[in-house]
Amino acid sequence: MTTRTAARKKSIAKSAKSAEPAGSVKSAPFQAPARALEWVGEVDGWVEMIDQTRLPASCEILQIRTAEEIAEAIRRLSVRGAPAIGVAAAYGVVLGARSAAGNGLGSFQRALKEAIEKLAASRPTAVNLFWALKRMEEKAKSWIAEGREAREVASLLLEEARAIHREDAALCEAIGRHGAALLRDGETVLTHCNAGALATGGLGTALAVIYRAVQDGKKIRVYADETRPLLQGARLTAWELVRAGIEVTLLCDSAAPVLLRAGRVDAVVVGADRIARNGDAANKIGTYGLAVHARGQGVPFYIAAPSTTFDLSIASGRQIPIEERRPEEVTAGFGLATAPEGVRVYNPAFDVTPAALITAFITEHGVIRPPYRRSIAAALKRR
Amino acid sequence: MTTRTAARKKSIAKSAKSAEPAGSVKSAPFQAPARALEWVGEVDGWVEMIDQTRLPASCEILQIRTAEEIAEAIRRLSVRGAPAIGVAAAYGVVLGARSAAGNGLGSFQRALKEAIEKLAASRPTAVNLFWALKRMEEKAKSWIAEGREAREVASLLLEEARAIHREDAALCEAIGRHGAALLRDGETVLTHCNAGALATGGLGTALAVIYRAVQDGKKIRVYADETRPLLQGARLTAWELVRAGIEVTLLCDSAAPVLLRAGRVDAVVVGADRIARNGDAANKIGTYGLAVHARGQGVPFYIAAPSTTFDLSIASGRQIPIEERRPEEVTAGFGLATAPEGVRVYNPAFDVTPAALITAFITEHGVIRPPYRRSIAAALKRR
Repeated sequence: MTTRTAARKKSIAKSAKSAEPAGSVKSAPFQAPARALEWVGEVDGWVEMIDQTRLPASCEILQIRTAEEIAEAIRRLSVRGAPAIGVAAAYGVVLGARSAAGNGLGSFQRALKEAIEKLAASRPTAVNLFWALKRMEEKAKSWIAEGREAREVASLLLEEARAIHREDAALCEAIGRHGAALLRDGETVLTHCNAGALATGGLGTALAVIYRAVQDGKKIRVYADETRPLLQGARLTAWELVRAGIEVTLLCDSAAPVLLRAGRVDAVVVGADRIARNGDAANKIGTYGLAVHARGQGVPFYIAAPSTTFDLSIASGRQIPIEERRPEEVTAGFGLATAPEGVRVYNPAFDVTPAALITAFITEHGVIRPPYRRSIAAALKRR
Repeated sequence: MTTRTAARKKSIAKSAKSAEPAGSVKSAPFQAPARALEWVGEVDGWVEMIDQTRLPASCEILQIRTAEEIAEAIRRLSVRGAPAIGVAAAYGVVLGARSAAGNGLGSFQRALKEAIEKLAASRPTAVNLFWALKRMEEKAKSWIAEGREAREVASLLLEEARAIHREDAALCEAIGRHGAALLRDGETVLTHCNAGALATGGLGTALAVIYRAVQDGKKIRVYADETRPLLQGARLTAWELVRAGIEVTLLCDSAAPVLLRAGRVDAVVVGADRIARNGDAANKIGTYGLAVHARGQGVPFYIAAPSTTFDLSIASGRQIPIEERRPEEVTAGFGLATAPEGVRVYNPAFDVTPAALITAFITEHGVIRPPYRRSIAAALKRR
């Protein structure tokens, strides 16, 4: 895995070509946001990936040429966000397969299996990871069963991985298009965590709405919650938006209520990790509190998510398990001890926003409004 | 200014004598919380002060023997919290005066004036600082006018500084007594920021309520918001409570809403920086959001503050100016850049909680309940 900084790099996504000087941000024209990762060249090519662990201090681009390196990049959070992890894993399968494509079918199949196992072990709870690996594996099997040669299967796998990437980008585009229609020129949006280009294979979900509105010529200002404990809002959302030339103001999570109360926000737009049949939605810790304040101040509260985020097997938010994460994220999140020894920690990764507080869901199929018991089922029949 | 760690230090406040091993915290008996500072010995003595900039990583005790060092300790936030700053400044006047007490009255008066000027410049917006300096200065002038000798005036100034310290401790005690009566055995309290012993010359305000309830034999559990951006909850409140043997659980500010919604909090108790005539109260950013959630969940929301925090010249919270602080507190609060260049920052130090959301004020005169327009004026007539 080799590394270099975006400023010195030519082949990476257009938006990552040069660092904008800080002062020019306000008046910069819209530019497509940086892409989390992409495949460069043909089947003998490589993956270029923004090392998100180095953001925002520096934008380093990893050049990845093996499945092991993709697994390692997923494990160390160089790439994160369920859709982006799925895309990375698909490319990882290509890298694993092509490494043995010249050695005969038996060797090729072993290399493929090994790559998939390594990638599957990289982040055990990531649903999109397994979904992408399964899709790649089944395609490979069917092509091999058709009697195709290893080299050809490797090329076809690259096409499949690119299709996964393209499909994800198309989902983001559609979400952006439907969501942008909800925003008017001159409006101000508050968001939480990072549901942006860095988390997906495209423009993101919540941030796609903003990107598209800006592309459509609307002036949109953004407030970004820093999103403790891992600061995805500060490190990733603010970084993406600055790069895209969109005016973004960062704030501590606890300052959002006064902002809403002061009438300085026209809409809240966030992503989601899982949405129940009744519309209760799990998202990054802090989302529920925001939704309460938005409702109290009459500000629309939108959740932007692809239809795959809806889990119709779950009746309500009560059935969504909430992961409690390591205390150190709170007590030593910056390498420094910021809390005393002996203190207990409550560190839920997510909270559940009741459907009643959600103005609408923005999906690739369009905007879903209450009553959700009916509208969610109706919208998702289309998938 | 010399420094040593509390563990090796005998003469400091009893509670700071030894570090409790983390494992023993739960079952430890109540012990008085660490004191922010104290005077050791007679007029030739010194100030010992916890260096709060080193908490929670280590508890270092500063030994301070000059007025300059007190000013420097205030400036660099080794001591913070309006009441504690007032006490420190009073001792600073003693240190300045006694340095010239052997050199005749003219020299003594010059040293006194110089010390007061240096101390006044240490934190220009701290009301208690000026109040304490003025009280010390006026006393010194009256004693000099009575014809007392420099040495005697220096000794009397030490008595006066000790009186300021004692009076502050007594305020805390009274607030604790009145507040503790509101808490029942087995209850869980949520607090925000640090309104504790470290901020005052005594037990604190919000935390005095908890300390007193525990002293009275009640089992009280505490949730402490970490309180971004400066993490006073994590660094100071959690540290104080762990030291005092009280069970404390730290959380990110954005996790408090789900805690309240889950019914895991019986009361919210916080301090205040300034309270208007109608009961609107300014306190650390995040307090307003908490108050909204407490009200929504039917959890009592108390503000513990001495009567000096009420500013009857102000009709409502709208007239309380809200200080916006340096962006770096949000973007680089831990020495690391956690946000990109070019990002704007919204960093208000305080917010204003409307009186309607406040269940009661806990003051040294007792508990003040609505309707506040009448009850606040009536209670404060007694001062």
